[in-house]
Amino acid sequence: MPTFTVFKGSKEGKIIKTETTRPSLQNDQVLVKITASGLCGTDEHYRHADMGLGHEGAGIVEELGPGVKGLKKGDRVGWGYQHDSCGQCEWCLTGRETFCEQRAMYGYADLDQGSFGSHAVWREAFLFAIPDGITDQEAAPLMCGGATVFNALKMYNIQPTDRVGVMGVGGLGHLAIQFASKMGCDVVVFSGTEGKRDEAMRLGATEFVAMKGRTELSIGRKLDALLVTTSVQPDWNLILPTMGPDSKIFPLTVSMDNFSIPYMPLIMSGIRIQGSLVAARSIQRHMLLFAAQHQIKPIMMEFPMSEVGITQAMDTLSDGSMRYRGVLVPQN
Amino acid sequence: MPTFTVFKGSKEGKIIKTETTRPSLQNDQVLVKITASGLCGTDEHYRHADMGLGHEGAGIVEELGPGVKGLKKGDRVGWGYQHDSCGQCEWCLTGRETFCEQRAMYGYADLDQGSFGSHAVWREAFLFAIPDGITDQEAAPLMCGGATVFNALKMYNIQPTDRVGVMGVGGLGHLAIQFASKMGCDVVVFSGTEGKRDEAMRLGATEFVAMKGRTELSIGRKLDALLVTTSVQPDWNLILPTMGPDSKIFPLTVSMDNFSIPYMPLIMSGIRIQGSLVAARSIQRHMLLFAAQHQIKPIMMEFPMSEVGITQAMDTLSDGSMRYRGVLVPQN
Repeated sequence: MPTFTVFKGSKEGKIIKTETTRPSLQNDQVLVKITASGLCGTDEHYRHADMGLGHEGAGIVEELGPGVKGLKKGDRVGWGYQHDSCGQCEWCLTGRETFCEQRAMYGYADLDQGSFGSHAVWREAFLFAIPDGITDQEAAPLMCGGATVFNALKMYNIQPTDRVGVMGVGGLGHLAIQFASKMGCDVVVFSGTEGKRDEAMRLGATEFVAMKGRTELSIGRKLDALLVTTSVQPDWNLILPTMGPDSKIFPLTVSMDNFSIPYMPLIMSGIRIQGSLVAARSIQRHMLLFAAQHQIKPIMMEFPMSEVGITQAMDTLSDGSMRYRGVLVPQN
Repeated sequence: MPTFTVFKGSKEGKIIKTETTRPSLQNDQVLVKITASGLCGTDEHYRHADMGLGHEGAGIVEELGPGVKGLKKGDRVGWGYQHDSCGQCEWCLTGRETFCEQRAMYGYADLDQGSFGSHAVWREAFLFAIPDGITDQEAAPLMCGGATVFNALKMYNIQPTDRVGVMGVGGLGHLAIQFASKMGCDVVVFSGTEGKRDEAMRLGATEFVAMKGRTELSIGRKLDALLVTTSVQPDWNLILPTMGPDSKIFPLTVSMDNFSIPYMPLIMSGIRIQGSLVAARSIQRHMLLFAAQHQIKPIMMEFPMSEVGITQAMDTLSDGSMRYRGVLVPQN
C-alpha cells in the first residue's frame, strides 16, 4: 500500500506537509518517485485549499500496477494538469480529451496528492516519457507551462510563416518565445519595460516592444497570432491595431473578470478569440519531442521541496521576481 | 456618360432622391439597371449620412466598359458590401479580399451611389451572376444578408454533423436557418418569444427555444457553433452553458459596445469567438449556387423604390415588424 509525503494548501495559506495512504496499485497505475516539480500560478490560486498542490511533475517510476504495458521501473516520466478521462466520448476519441466531461483535472480530482511531495500515483495513460537531453528539472515546467503555450501554437495551426506576438515574459511567455521561434515564426515580444529585452532577444524574439507609457504601438507588419501570458488582462484598445486580419488571439491569462474587447474591430478584421487550455496527450508528446530536438529549456530558480521552500517559491512568484519558472527539488 | 437616380441619406434622416453623373465606363466597369434592392440594418445606420444608400443590389447589365470579359448586356447580376480590392495583397491572393487594406466597402467608398436608385456602376470583378431559379428580388437579400451568414458557415468550416444554434429570427437569422439546415446541420433556433416557432421549424429548425423569462437554457446535446444575429448582444451567462467544448461563436450583430463575455468558461471549454464579415467572392459564388440548388429564398416584404417607400421600409425594420427582409422594387 503506497504511503508517501504530500504538501497541501490550507485555509490560512500555510503549506502543510502530511502523509497520504493509497490502496495497492490497480490496473495501469504507476507509483512515481518525484524528482522535480514546477510551480505554476494556478498552484498559488489553490494555496488556500485543502488539497495536494503541484501539477508540473517529473520523477522516476518506482512501482507498476498489474495492467501497465509500456513503462518500466526506473523510467523517467512527467505529468501535467490532467490525470484521466473517460476514453469513450467524442473528445477522447478525437484527441481532445482535455474537454472530456469526466476529465480529471488538477484542483477538481485526486485532491489527496500532487507534484509537491515525495511520490504520486497516476495512470500510465497520463504519464509522459521524458526524452533524453531533457533533465527532470527541465521537464517539470514543460508539463503545464510549456504544454499550455505549445497547445495554442499547435492545436490552432500556427504556421512557420506567421508573425506571432508573445505578451508577457514570465513562466509561460519565456517558453512561448522559444517554441514559436524554433517553429520558424517571426516573434514580437511585448513586455512592460525594457528590463527583459536582452533575454527575450536571446530566446528568439525578432522584435521587442516595451509597453509602459505607450499610447499607441506600431510594429510594422501586423500579427497573425498573439499569445497573452500576462497575469492581468491587457489594454485591448492598445493591442488591437497590431492584429492583422483573420488573426488569432489566445488569452492564456487566468482571470475571474469578464473578457471584454472592442467589438467592431473584431468583426471588421475577422479576428478570432480562441480559448485554449492545456495540451491533450498527443500534443503533449509533440511538445516534449520538439523541446528535446530544439533544446528548448525553461530558465529556472530552484527551491527545496519543503514547507519553507514551497512558501518561498510562491512568495517569489507573487511578488513578480521569479526568473522565470520556480522548480522544487527534493532534499535528499 | 452614365447619369442616373440615387437615393441618399441626409443629416436629418430624410431620404433624398437625386442624380449622379459618372464618367464613361472604364476598364471592366458595368452599368447595371437596378431591379431590386434588399434593405439591411446597416442601411439604416447610414440614414443620416450624405451618401448613396443600399448594398444588396440586383439588376440587369445595360452597358459594358471596354475591358469587360464575361458579362453581356441583359445578364442578371447582383452585388453586395464590397465593390473593389487591390488584387495584389496577401488577402486578395488568398481568397480573403474582404480584408484587403484597399477594400472598397459600402459606407467608405463609392459614396455617390448605392443599390437604392435606378442604376449603378460597378467593376465586373465584383458583380455576381444570379443563377436561374432565383429571381432578382430573391437574389437581392442574399447579396449581404445571405452572404454574411453563409460566410460564417463556410469560411469557418462548419460541418454537416454539427449542431448549430441560430439566435434571432430576422433578416439574417431566417436565412441562416435555411443554409445550415440544407447543409445537413442540426439547427437550434433561439428567439425572444414563441411567435416565430412555426416559421423557424418550417425553415428547417430541429428545435426552437423561446428565451423570454428563461434563467437557464437546457437544449440537450450542446452546440458546435452559434450564429448571433440579434440586433443587440445577448446575455452570455445564459448562452454559454449551451456551448460545447471547442465550439465557435459568431457575433454577427453590429454593436458599438464592447464585446464582453465570462472569461473562464471560454478557456475551460476552449471556445472560439470568431469575428466574421461579409463573404469574399469565392464564397459569395458558392452561396448563390447553394441557394439555387436548395431553393433557399428570403421571405420578403416589398416596398416601392422611392423616398416614401424607402422611409417606410426603414421604419418597418426599426420597429421590429419586418418579416423578414425588406425589398425595394422600382415602380415602372
